[in-house]
Amino acid sequence: MSLEATIAAIGPLDTGAMRIAAARQDRLTKPRGALGRLEQLGIQLAGITGRERPRLERPAIVVAAASHGIAAEGVSAYPASVTAQMLANFVAGGAAINVLARHVGAKLLVVDAGVDPEVAAHPLLRRERLAPGTASFLHGPAMPREHARSIVERGIAIAAELAHDGVGLLAVGEMGIGNTTSAAALVAAATGAPAATVTGRGTGVDDATLAHKRLVVERAVALHRPDPQDGLALLSSLGGYEIGLLAGCILGAAARRVPVLLDGYITAAAALVAVRCCRRASGYLIAAHRSAEAGHALALADLGLDPLLDLGLRLGEGSGAALALPLVVAAARLLDEMATFDEAGVDDGL
Amino acid sequence: MSLEATIAAIGPLDTGAMRIAAARQDRLTKPRGALGRLEQLGIQLAGITGRERPRLERPAIVVAAASHGIAAEGVSAYPASVTAQMLANFVAGGAAINVLARHVGAKLLVVDAGVDPEVAAHPLLRRERLAPGTASFLHGPAMPREHARSIVERGIAIAAELAHDGVGLLAVGEMGIGNTTSAAALVAAATGAPAATVTGRGTGVDDATLAHKRLVVERAVALHRPDPQDGLALLSSLGGYEIGLLAGCILGAAARRVPVLLDGYITAAAALVAVRCCRRASGYLIAAHRSAEAGHALALADLGLDPLLDLGLRLGEGSGAALALPLVVAAARLLDEMATFDEAGVDDGL
Repeated sequence: MSLEATIAAIGPLDTGAMRIAAARQDRLTKPRGALGRLEQLGIQLAGITGRERPRLERPAIVVAAASHGIAAEGVSAYPASVTAQMLANFVAGGAAINVLARHVGAKLLVVDAGVDPEVAAHPLLRRERLAPGTASFLHGPAMPREHARSIVERGIAIAAELAHDGVGLLAVGEMGIGNTTSAAALVAAATGAPAATVTGRGTGVDDATLAHKRLVVERAVALHRPDPQDGLALLSSLGGYEIGLLAGCILGAAARRVPVLLDGYITAAAALVAVRCCRRASGYLIAAHRSAEAGHALALADLGLDPLLDLGLRLGEGSGAALALPLVVAAARLLDEMATFDEAGVDDGL
Repeated sequence: MSLEATIAAIGPLDTGAMRIAAARQDRLTKPRGALGRLEQLGIQLAGITGRERPRLERPAIVVAAASHGIAAEGVSAYPASVTAQMLANFVAGGAAINVLARHVGAKLLVVDAGVDPEVAAHPLLRRERLAPGTASFLHGPAMPREHARSIVERGIAIAAELAHDGVGLLAVGEMGIGNTTSAAALVAAATGAPAATVTGRGTGVDDATLAHKRLVVERAVALHRPDPQDGLALLSSLGGYEIGLLAGCILGAAARRVPVLLDGYITAAAALVAVRCCRRASGYLIAAHRSAEAGHALALADLGLDPLLDLGLRLGEGSGAALALPLVVAAARLLDEMATFDEAGVDDGL
């Protein structure tokens, strides 16, 4: 489906289903509000799915990886070659996200959105390569404008396939050495926040590299000045391919009323790209956690999201989303499966 | 096993296993520290179990219910009869904890530790009744001193059976109208904190009832003045039977090197009783969440625990522990199952 058709298909949340779900929350065998955040989350899930008793069957995690030209500017603690090595680790099953996807019973889809060097073909690896990574956005756009549209539409297609296969909850994650720099530049450009506020240590750079990384972000935003309301302009200026692919997954899931569980900073940047393409998409988002990365809280505030977990995570890969996934499914199951006061013969204290 | 033999069997954490686990964390394919709180939790689990790659198989949740004489003093939003009704709901499978135990794949053991009126026998219900609930501790001790010892020893026996059956992680929960008043009095007596600080709204009392509840707690602590270092004195003075049973579960699990996952305020009070019996037991504890109940944070601080979740929960039943259970298992699985840099052929950036 084209980007425009997808945007047109994203509707508002189903307020009728939300009202029925909210009334049901108050009849379940618990004091009103006693399940805290999970009660509101259950109501949101009703609004997203259009079902007053939502079921989030067959959860899936899409992890997209891509290389970043900006990594050549010395902004990471790891060499750029680690992106391809970690993609191979995902396919081999040894990374944190493999362990966590198994643990939470989620299907894991690993996508090469443009990794350099190319990783050998593997049945578990999906290729959506338009280029072997972005160009350094200090010297020009990260990718051509037509690539920005194409990579988003490839993400839309992936979400459509997953929804067709019955996926009821989509978590997103990423890998790409240099991509916290891309995310920081996107957040700065989209929100107007200064580079120093949105730029953090990523995989763990030292003070000197952090200072340099901030300068890189500041120069990049000043060079491109993309329209902060134009998702494709933000993406083509500042990258990266995995961010664009995930922005497409978000839009495609929202168009099919599938809730999307964000991971950390880079997926928040992807969500900003998606929401700048279609504001209504924000209602379909759930923030898994607040990462240790500076600027993540600011991006979540722009998206209007309050994260479920705060565990000092800063790994990416969808690891935080996978850890929060059982909480989201629990919110739906509690709303669906708990007995009401009448059914259980319990005095409701009113 | 007797209380004394159990206390003698509780050893320190295995620092050798912790050292090996900590070294392994730094060789796994992630930036050092990128899994945040879960890395330290994995190391604690190694110390508890004595295995550098801990496996937490067959998790179980013990939910103990009991009636409270203090409920007659008008301290709850619900009538005392709800305790027995909810116990029946647990056995029938309709409560939040039933949904969550199924969701996280944990065995659920429901214990009648003294509920009035007595609930009909059921294969899923275990009876450990010494009395049909506590006496009001405004007029004398909540239970005889020999009951305090006996109910703790019954909890020890339950934990021993579960450990014998291969339970690798024990979560604890409770039900008992009036038990936040008992917990508040225990926390005040054990820590010296004023009644106003430790007394909250429980299931949701109004302002007038809250003020009355605070007076009840203040009077009770002044009446009994139990030795704050004597777990059995605290328990017999202020109750309740489910709290004593869970304190025993904690001690019994610690004696068998099984990690214990606490739920909310009442289980924190049970942990205080356990730790006042044996200080070393605190190393075996994990705090699932910070509840909405006033005083919980204070009790956790006394126990030296930092909770994993903060979702505004105030239900009890073990619901918060069940929600955090997948995080604890994930911490162990990540440590055990992730590939090292060498195994995966990934450059570690050092």
